[in-house]
Formats: sequence, structure tokens, C-alpha cells
Amino acid sequence: MTYKGDSPTELQTLLENKKYRILKETLSEMNEVDIASFIEELDTEQVLLVFRLLPKDLALDVFACLPIEHMEHIINSIGDMELRDMIEDLYTDDVMDMLEELPATMVKRVIQTATPATRSIINQYLNYPENSAGSIMTAEYVALKKNMTVEQSLNYIRQHGVNKETIYTCYVTNIHRKLEGVITLKNLVMSPSNAIIADIMDEHVMKATTTEDPEEIAYRFNKYNLLSLPVVDHENRIVGIITVDDVMSVLEQETTEDFEKMAAMLPSEKPYLKTSVFTLAKNRILWLLVLMVSSMITGGILASYEEAFAVLPLLVSFIPMLTGTGGNAGSQSSTLVIRGMTLNEIRPKDIFKVVFKEFRVGLLCGIALAAVNYIRLIIFYPGQELICLTVVLSLLLTIIMAKCVGCMLPIGAKKLHLDPAIMAAPLISTIVDAFSLIIYFQIACALLHI
Amino acid sequence: MTYKGDSPTELQTLLENKKYRILKETLSEMNEVDIASFIEELDTEQVLLVFRLLPKDLALDVFACLPIEHMEHIINSIGDMELRDMIEDLYTDDVMDMLEELPATMVKRVIQTATPATRSIINQYLNYPENSAGSIMTAEYVALKKNMTVEQSLNYIRQHGVNKETIYTCYVTNIHRKLEGVITLKNLVMSPSNAIIADIMDEHVMKATTTEDPEEIAYRFNKYNLLSLPVVDHENRIVGIITVDDVMSVLEQETTEDFEKMAAMLPSEKPYLKTSVFTLAKNRILWLLVLMVSSMITGGILASYEEAFAVLPLLVSFIPMLTGTGGNAGSQSSTLVIRGMTLNEIRPKDIFKVVFKEFRVGLLCGIALAAVNYIRLIIFYPGQELICLTVVLSLLLTIIMAKCVGCMLPIGAKKLHLDPAIMAAPLISTIVDAFSLIIYFQIACALLHI
Repeated sequence: MTYKGDSPTELQTLLENKKYRILKETLSEMNEVDIASFIEELDTEQVLLVFRLLPKDLALDVFACLPIEHMEHIINSIGDMELRDMIEDLYTDDVMDMLEELPATMVKRVIQTATPATRSIINQYLNYPENSAGSIMTAEYVALKKNMTVEQSLNYIRQHGVNKETIYTCYVTNIHRKLEGVITLKNLVMSPSNAIIADIMDEHVMKATTTEDPEEIAYRFNKYNLLSLPVVDHENRIVGIITVDDVMSVLEQETTEDFEKMAAMLPSEKPYLKTSVFTLAKNRILWLLVLMVSSMITGGILASYEEAFAVLPLLVSFIPMLTGTGGNAGSQSSTLVIRGMTLNEIRPKDIFKVVFKEFRVGLLCGIALAAVNYIRLIIFYPGQELICLTVVLSLLLTIIMAKCVGCMLPIGAKKLHLDPAIMAAPLISTIVDAFSLIIYFQIACALLHI
Repeated sequence: MTYKGDSPTELQTLLENKKYRILKETLSEMNEVDIASFIEELDTEQVLLVFRLLPKDLALDVFACLPIEHMEHIINSIGDMELRDMIEDLYTDDVMDMLEELPATMVKRVIQTATPATRSIINQYLNYPENSAGSIMTAEYVALKKNMTVEQSLNYIRQHGVNKETIYTCYVTNIHRKLEGVITLKNLVMSPSNAIIADIMDEHVMKATTTEDPEEIAYRFNKYNLLSLPVVDHENRIVGIITVDDVMSVLEQETTEDFEKMAAMLPSEKPYLKTSVFTLAKNRILWLLVLMVSSMITGGILASYEEAFAVLPLLVSFIPMLTGTGGNAGSQSSTLVIRGMTLNEIRPKDIFKVVFKEFRVGLLCGIALAAVNYIRLIIFYPGQELICLTVVLSLLLTIIMAKCVGCMLPIGAKKLHLDPAIMAAPLISTIVDAFSLIIYFQIACALLHI
């Protein structure tokens, strides 16, 4: 929780002038996250130098915040004994995050260097699938026993709590590690010291299973205002805990992925500026290709009405307005529905409610836009009432159609167990384009007798 | 933290069969959030009945989770004494959330009923601007004094901690309420009971000011893994705290707003299904109109090349593919840049780095898509090499242009202190449409000598 406003440039100056003693003192007063940001910008040889200046406990916290290249460099520069101590003291979730990114040979070294107990936990954790509760939990929680008194519990926490990820929620387990209850440190502090845990614990424990989706867990944290949640295996044995800070990272990452998917990209793993041009291009080409090919269908539809606009080229000039408005109207609906489903506010069974709502919204929006357009058209194209009518009518129908497609597509995707963000959002404008052209030219042919 | 899987239908059955004793027992074992969800679905007269069944403390927690209509109904049905007790026991942030939505006459009654101390806090909090740290903080924190021992502090917490929003982070203040340090309950529990707070507290306190943007604060919680943050006025006096659960709600809401703004909508205040058709339409019409009018410019550009496609109607059929791909390529870039700026990963000063990166990404994507297109074109339109070349060249240039516009627009908006989500994302496709048509017809006129 320490925070000090020393800017990286001041620290840089201290480092360049070799004022290591002052640098060391300044760093020891700083927050680990800020120290890591400072180290991140340094050259490889400076990284180790600064890292060595940190007091042991702080060094460990800083290490957990560093980018993988720096972790690699530090691990490669220290001996097995030191590495073992570090692995021992790091939280399991930080070790697992690191192992996920390290090259295979280094993963091997880390696992071989660890103590047998830690090695067995690491191996257990490595088995949990990516993007599961098991992959984000940590093993450092406080486990109490039913028959302990409050005083015994507090003494236990004093002895074993230092290295726990949180001591604010303690879990009560039996000898088989099965979860029997939960008690907060607040309850412990507020209760008389001779009270028995079994009498004051809460037996209705909210918990997650190892295979659960982290995003679902994140929304549960938010709904119930949780600080931590135990994770159990299929025999109700506690295997780890998830804390609120992990959950905030999950939410941030999932949100970024949703944004990327809705803009027709494969999700990226790193921040934008750290992603290579090649990876960025690779993440985008697939969907651009898919959408390009589908827009060729729209082109084909357009080509089939070639005669119509050969007779009346003016018709073409309204196409961008129609398809553009349709696309916008559709993506408004799909965005609201996709977000609503992410937040569990809209469920697939609400489909009729949603479509009826969107139909009415489309009607209102359509009438408003058509009216504005009609005024513009009779001013700019006097005497061409039929063309005006064609455009206005097409606009109204396009907007209603776009709203309905925009809400049905994501709900449909969800029903088919597809990801609505990727399956619906990027496709909306292509689909709406095609339909709106058909609407437009059908009306044009009928009204204008082409 | 209690959780019980009783489904709302079971509870409903108990209620309908008037099994109030069993219903009462069942409810008293449940989590307040789940009880609130159950009450939310009930008829007005049932709401009060079920609310009366709850034990006092639980009733208060449930009340804070109810939608505003039910709060209104309950407040209207209880006497002043009972209302006073409730206001007294609710957390200030919950009271403020409620007051924000209640009709003016009820706000007046709540304030008049409150005790003088609470009334003065409410009046102070009412002065903080909407969407500021002041508007999401709460007044129930633990304040310790420097000269207290650990034992005295723990005793103080035992006496006063029950109604605090959190006791896990305690703030050390002087007699003028100025913030001097911070100490966690973990530190207190781990320290010898005769240690003096001044010696063990952390003096570098991370804090927010009352006017700070909640979204910025949310990202700070995430960056530093905070559980709570004190809020101070301009004289460094603590006026409230923000806890991590408030911050998660802020993040969720801000993310939803970003999604809405990027899909060209005014942000809504309520979940989709609870928003009226009229409000939904109102939130969408403005931007649809703006974008419709700007797409008329595109239509005008198209009309100015009327001669070109009168000579060669085939040209028209490639327009959806070109503008569609351009729009998609542009919104990929703008989405990444807007999200990157939200997460503070991209700053306006990175503009050259970003544009150069997007230029190269555009080149790679453009070449790939142009190649695929070229193969398709020489198969479907044999002997029309110049048209193929026109389309392929336009596609390449359009994608590069779209990528550059897509990243410059949001950064430019940020530099002008406009909201990138609303100022850039919806406009991208309209702007890209116009440019891509100009590129296309300029190349067509040059190559095909129209």
C-alpha cells in the first residue's frame, strides 16, 4: 500500500549517477507496482542491479509484477538455492502465471528446483485447463478447524498468516480438506476469544469448482460483493482460493477480448504497443477475409440490379446512406444485447421480449429518420416524389429489419453455444447490407416500374 | 457470504401457501442479494409482507439491494422512527444511491427524519458532483489515532467495527481528521499487542480526492490490487472511503457505457430489459441522424461519379466490398486504440508509434486481402485486367487509409479532450466510406480512362 511520487526520471538519474544508497532507500519506500514499472524500462544489465538493491520481501513482490523477459533474465542470473527460496515464497497463482509464459527448459528448471511440496502443488495446478477457475486460483489460504477456539484461530493466523494471499476470509476444513464452513477475520475479531469456530462459522459457503469459467466467477464476485471465493474439486475438497484482485484482472481482460471480438479481431494476449505488427495483422486478417467474402455476396446482389441503376443512376447515390444507417441501427441493437447477455441481464429465453422491443424501437427510430430524410429529399429533388418515397420507405424498413436482425443474431448464437461477441457483432453490417439492398431495389422496381 | 440454492419458485410456493414460518426460516439463511432478487419479482403488497419477515440486520442489507420502486414503497409504508433507524444503519453510499433516485418529496422526508449527525453527512455528500470519487464513497471507516497501541486499536475496532463498511484497512488520523497513515487489520493482528500505531503504520497513503474520476480510481485499484482507498478533501482531511465492491460496479458501468458509445448510442442508466422503448429509441436516434447526414456526403461523392458507373455499371458492384472492408479495417484499429487508451496502455504521445504500426499492419492486411481478391477477380472476370487492377489497388489503399484514420481519430479526440469512444468509433465507417469511394473512382478514372 506504500505510494511515493518519485518519478521514473528521478530514479533514472540516481541510477546513472551510481547513487545506489539513495536509490536503495528510495526504492524501499515505494510500492512494488511502481518499482516494477521503473525496472521495466531499464536495460538488461541494469535490471539485475536494481533488483539486487531491493530488500528480499519487496524484491519478491516486485518480481511478481515484472514482464516475462525480465523474469527470465533474473531467473537465469540467480542460483538454484535462491530460485528455490523465491518459488517457495511466491504465491502459487504468480508462479503459474510465470510458468505459462516461460520457455519449456526454464519451466523444467523451476519445477526441479522447487521443494517437493511446492512441486506437487505446481504439478497439480498445471493440470487445470486454461481459462478455468483452477488456472487463476492460488494455494495460499488460511484453513481452520471446527473445534478451534477464536483465540487458537487468531494464534494460528499470527503464525501462518504472513504468507497467505488473504487472511480476511478463513476456510474451515475437516481432516480430508473438505470444506465445512467459512469465517471472516471480522467475525473472529468481533467474537469472544473462547468461542468455538463451529458455532460462529457460516456453513453456507459460496464456492467455485476448478473447471468453472473465470468470467462467470467474476460476475459472481460483483453480484455478491465478495473478497475471495474458495475453489473445490469434485469431492468438495478445497484446492485453492480466488481473490478479488485476480477477478478484476479477469474482468479487464475479458472486456478487452469482447471489444476485440466485436470489432472482428482474434483476441490478443499482450497490450497493443507490445504486440508485434505481424501478430496484429494475423489477428485481423482472418475476419477481414471472411467479411470481405461475405460482402462480395452483397456486391452480387447489387450487380443483379445493374439494369435498375443503369436506367436511374441517381438510385446509387442513396446506397451509402441506406446501408450505413442500417449497419449502425443493427450494431446498436447487437451491442446492447451482447453486453446484456454478458452481464446476465438478458437470457436466451427473453428472445421474444427483446425482438418485440427492438421492433418498436426500430419503428420509432425509422419514422424519425425517414421524416428527416423526406424533408431533405423534397427540397433537393423536387418533383421526384416516387424516388423520395422509395428512399424513405426503404429507410424505414431497413431500420426495422436491422434492429430485429441485430438482436436475434447474438441471441441465436448464444442458443447455439457460439460466442455472440464474435459470431454476431462483425456479421451484422454485412447481413444488414445485403437485406437493405434487396429491400431498396425491390421497392424501387415496384414503385418506379423499372 | 451465506448462499443457499432455494429457487425463487420454492419461495414463491411457500409465500402463496402462507407458510410464513418456514419462509422466514428459509430467508434468514439466505444471502441478501438472492433475497432481493426474489422480492424484486413480487407484487407490491407481497413486498412489504416478505420484508417484514426478515430479521432486522438482514432486512437492512436486503433493502440496500432492492430496486428503487420497492424502496419507495417500503419507505412510504414505515413510520418515521423506523425510517430513522434504517437511515442510521445503512451505509452512506447506499443512502446516497437511494436519494439520487427518490422523488424530491421523499428525499426531503429522509433528510428530515435522519439524526442531526447523519443529516449533516448526507448534506455534505449531496454536494459532491455526480461521477466523482465523492459520489461513490461511504462514510463508515475505522479511524485510529497514532498513539494507540495495537491492543487499544483492536478493542476500538471490536466496539465500533460492526457497522463499518470495512475494518480490514484502518486509517490513522489526527484530531483535525487529517490523514496521517494507514494500517491493515493484518498488520494489527500480526503485531505485538503493545506496539504503538505510529511505529507500525504506513505513512505513504495512497488516496483519492473528492473530485477525482471514478474510472481513474477503478484502474488504480486494479493496478495496485487495492481493497479500499481513502478519499480526502483539499486539506487532506479524510471524508470517506471507496471499497473494491464499489469499484467493480463502476468498472462494469463504465465498460457498458463504452460499448454503448462505441456503437453510437447515448449511455443508458438501467439494464436493457428495464429501459422503456421510448428511452431506448431516444438514446439511439441522435447518433443515427448524425451518421445518416454524414453518409449523405458519401452519397454526394458517389453521385459526382455518376458518369463513371453509367459507362461501367460493373464498378458499382465492388462498392460494398470496398467500403465494407474499409469500415471493418478501420474499426479494428480504432477499437484497439480506444481500449488501449482506456487502460492507459496507449497515451496521446504515442501517436507516431501507433500510426507507424497501423500503417505496417494495414500494408500486411491489404496485401493479403488484395491477393485473395485478385485471384477471385481473374477467375470471375477474365480479360478485364484493368478493372481487376483498379479494384485490387483500391482495396490495398483503402485498408491502409482505414487503419491510419482508425488510429488517428481516437488519439486526436483524446488530445482535444473529447471522449474517444463517442467521437471516434461511430464516425470511422462514415469517414472511411467517403475516402474509399474517392480512392476507388480516382483510380478507376485514371486506369480506365473514363
